[in-house]
Amino acid sequence: MNAIILAVGSEMLTPFKTDTNSLAVTERLNALGYDVRTKLVVGDRLDDIVSALRSVIGRVELVVCTGGLGPTEDDLTRDALAQVLDVDLEVDPAILDELRARFARRGIVMRDNNARQAQVPRGVAVVKNANGTAPGLLTVRAGTIVALLPGPPREMTPMLEGLIRDGHIPARSGGLFRRVLRITGRPESEVDAIAHPVYSPWRTQPIPITTTILAVLGQIELHLTAAAPTREAADAALTPAVEALCASLGSSVFSVDGRPLEAVVGDQLRQAGWMASVAESCTGGLLASRLTDVPGSSEYFDRGVVCYSNQAKVDLLGVPLALIEEQGAVSEPVALAMASGIRTRAGTVVGIGITGIAGPGGGTDHKPVGTVAVAVVAGSRQSVRTLHLFGSREQIKYQAAQAAMNMLRLMMIDART
Amino acid sequence: MNAIILAVGSEMLTPFKTDTNSLAVTERLNALGYDVRTKLVVGDRLDDIVSALRSVIGRVELVVCTGGLGPTEDDLTRDALAQVLDVDLEVDPAILDELRARFARRGIVMRDNNARQAQVPRGVAVVKNANGTAPGLLTVRAGTIVALLPGPPREMTPMLEGLIRDGHIPARSGGLFRRVLRITGRPESEVDAIAHPVYSPWRTQPIPITTTILAVLGQIELHLTAAAPTREAADAALTPAVEALCASLGSSVFSVDGRPLEAVVGDQLRQAGWMASVAESCTGGLLASRLTDVPGSSEYFDRGVVCYSNQAKVDLLGVPLALIEEQGAVSEPVALAMASGIRTRAGTVVGIGITGIAGPGGGTDHKPVGTVAVAVVAGSRQSVRTLHLFGSREQIKYQAAQAAMNMLRLMMIDART
Repeated sequence: MNAIILAVGSEMLTPFKTDTNSLAVTERLNALGYDVRTKLVVGDRLDDIVSALRSVIGRVELVVCTGGLGPTEDDLTRDALAQVLDVDLEVDPAILDELRARFARRGIVMRDNNARQAQVPRGVAVVKNANGTAPGLLTVRAGTIVALLPGPPREMTPMLEGLIRDGHIPARSGGLFRRVLRITGRPESEVDAIAHPVYSPWRTQPIPITTTILAVLGQIELHLTAAAPTREAADAALTPAVEALCASLGSSVFSVDGRPLEAVVGDQLRQAGWMASVAESCTGGLLASRLTDVPGSSEYFDRGVVCYSNQAKVDLLGVPLALIEEQGAVSEPVALAMASGIRTRAGTVVGIGITGIAGPGGGTDHKPVGTVAVAVVAGSRQSVRTLHLFGSREQIKYQAAQAAMNMLRLMMIDART
Repeated sequence: MNAIILAVGSEMLTPFKTDTNSLAVTERLNALGYDVRTKLVVGDRLDDIVSALRSVIGRVELVVCTGGLGPTEDDLTRDALAQVLDVDLEVDPAILDELRARFARRGIVMRDNNARQAQVPRGVAVVKNANGTAPGLLTVRAGTIVALLPGPPREMTPMLEGLIRDGHIPARSGGLFRRVLRITGRPESEVDAIAHPVYSPWRTQPIPITTTILAVLGQIELHLTAAAPTREAADAALTPAVEALCASLGSSVFSVDGRPLEAVVGDQLRQAGWMASVAESCTGGLLASRLTDVPGSSEYFDRGVVCYSNQAKVDLLGVPLALIEEQGAVSEPVALAMASGIRTRAGTVVGIGITGIAGPGGGTDHKPVGTVAVAVVAGSRQSVRTLHLFGSREQIKYQAAQAAMNMLRLMMIDART
């Protein structure tokens, strides 16, 4: 079963605002068994709304349209639907009474433009709005259920739920159920080359699973979507699928349950009963900030220092100035001295040191922008690497923090085995 | 002149990801005189991409399509375009050579799947990609310029700029030109109450300016959009408009040129020749990270410490343990002791201290989640405040860092006058 989501509103055609309603609508529809095939955004122009509605009605089983039902002249979704259905708009006296009562309760005189909201294309059902003035509309045409709801999420969401509860948007047999594998430390093409032979047969199995690969900064995500009659049936297919991918991709998979890397590493630290401290130069506090984004991180995170100046590296970490002068501030020995220095001074099991060139300035031929040395010390173990990263300053910072957390994660896996 | 933006990628039809590329594309196209009439999102399905392309070609002057040009089996935009144009895909040997050379430079053997990126629908022009492996495609059909670009913004953006520079996407007469005022430290309703009488007459002037207000985390934005024949005409209307709003809103406007707060504060510090250091508890390094997101911040940022444990506050900042026990770790005296402590130890002019409860745990009746004490010390001046913030842990961290930077900004304005 297929659905299309149509968002109406000129503000979503500016550089400032994107359509976000569709995310929650998608999740809800997917679980009911609807596959969202297309999303459309049009502005507050009658001809554009009309042609958008024409292009989707008859093409899929369900269209959810949000926005353009308010009181202003810009709100044209009602008019567009009437034109598409080739019927007149009629004032619904019950809606008008309710609007007047609503304003009276608040001691406000209703402005005339609000009466527009009482107009209903002939033969179309009205959907009550408990949280605002604009009612929704519901019709079925050419095999397509068309639900038109107001844009504000606090009005739209309960109205959509009401349509589902009352069976106007019926649950189809089965639904789409998802799992996400998160991977780091490998390029996308390598992940795909390994994963593809594993997942490709799943497309045609009795409970089909489609897999998409998504490269985001510092990590690759594999999204597995099973089309199944029930959640239990989906789980029965997805659980071994996730296991098979984990077996192929090994420890580069860091999460199968939605946790970001900082939460995974945090849980490892908590389980080991280890405290951690970090010393950052080029990441400028981002590693500490990400580690402490996790609720309860005070259980395993003791402190961090951001040492931008060489003097700060000497003062706060005891890095010998001679070492910095000899090896350069961006070097594996300095990263290691930073990790050991913070670890010793904080008295924690784990210490992490990061020093690098985030750019855009500061690069040399020998050490270009993106050169980052990362060291992790945990008890008697230590690991140090030089990364060659690409991207903007913020992207380099993010990837360096990601790599540092991943080095700690792998070291802790290794320590356990 | 009209344009449609088409985004290809199944991930944007999940509950996880929305199309964000279209925001920057819209801004660029608007300035060239194109009105974005519709945005479309389809998944990685050949039939859906084909029907989306068919539905837009011939309807508007320009279609910008992003995504689906990478190396994986899911990348089907090339195939869809070939089908729509009814031509074969042919391997372009020049692209293939360049791909091989690119991989060789990085010392990696190119996997076969990458060769898909060298396929080009016959008769379609290739758009070079300086920042990635996937080339773009360009064709004109039925009066529509169709530009197909890869999804990652750092690849897409320069390729779009290249097409504009080379006249493949020509500037039309007139366009929409924008300015953004960024405001912090006042609620949205107050900003609008002050600004509305100022901006409302501008809608009907010869070069009309429309104003929209947008509340984002920790700041309010006023977006001014002028419809004008040229950039010069727009500037002549926008510059006095921005000045009038700044005069009404005073020092709560921190930026009229796109700079984020961290860049504004950074520029103030650079101009004053002052170095800064920060001591963070609940913000966990976010303040240091935001300050060091700005290129060149090493000129004015010396160091930061993240003191999650009380012991770290004592060790690294010299905050008396008795003070913490007496006043509580989250208190104005402790924030002030943190700011003074880091300032003295780092030997900087400016010191900032932040201590609070970011949640979700740790709140009490007396000091609920969101209670944050912020202190700023600069030379002989000092300022300390207790904030009562709302939102998630990450939102509280962000707002606290924002408030700390704004306190420093206002103090520096005050010091100058």
